[in-house]
Amino acid sequence: MELNYIEHIGIAVKDLEAAIKYYEDILGLICYSVEEVKDQKVKTAFFKVGQTKIELLESTDPDGPIGKFIEKKGEGIHHIAFAVNNIEGQLQDAASKGIQLIDSRPRKGAEGLDIAFLHPKSTFGVLTELCEKK
Amino acid sequence: MELNYIEHIGIAVKDLEAAIKYYEDILGLICYSVEEVKDQKVKTAFFKVGQTKIELLESTDPDGPIGKFIEKKGEGIHHIAFAVNNIEGQLQDAASKGIQLIDSRPRKGAEGLDIAFLHPKSTFGVLTELCEKK
Repeated sequence: MELNYIEHIGIAVKDLEAAIKYYEDILGLICYSVEEVKDQKVKTAFFKVGQTKIELLESTDPDGPIGKFIEKKGEGIHHIAFAVNNIEGQLQDAASKGIQLIDSRPRKGAEGLDIAFLHPKSTFGVLTELCEKK
Repeated sequence: MELNYIEHIGIAVKDLEAAIKYYEDILGLICYSVEEVKDQKVKTAFFKVGQTKIELLESTDPDGPIGKFIEKKGEGIHHIAFAVNNIEGQLQDAASKGIQLIDSRPRKGAEGLDIAFLHPKSTFGVLTELCEKK
């Protein structure tokens, strides 16, 4: 695979409004977008720091992936997303090397990116996302 | 506070050699340094992707912070580190706004950086490090 840079870090929070306040008032970042991704059962808020975005994720459903994550592990860093070119080719390369894919083909994520996840069982516990802006 | 960019992401692993192999052979990154930080009871391996480093952390002692983290939560993303200027001033600013500090004054971390941690109780579950290259 070939990774360009860290596109974003996904962080699971219980209360998006309270977390936005912390990221703005304490860390000094600016929330430039709030978006609901119904497919993922989340409401997201985006910040930029250097080359990378921070994506806060609040679950809109206790049975969604973020709701389950918080129930199991508590609030905290949920995933890391790498910007790539040719996401389909990267997924094929990963699968050919024995990596378990959550998404064998890209789907639409927040901000209109093509995204796909690798399974943390194959990635030393790190839920890993690939993103491509087409 | 004022954050410049994400200096590194710290990832807790059980077996540093096996994890390095994954980051090199599958993800295509290059391990440019392996360093033991005795103070933290860890052996670290560094990779660069875009502006940000990935710091893999293997515990050298089950009672060290990484050993305890893995016992409680399993392998995975451990902390996020932001590059700052004037780390002492940033810590004062955070403390004045009610943030609980793990390090009230900077200490030396890997790669000779001045580092200090904010407590995840104050940061919505994200163990947060500040780093300055002096």
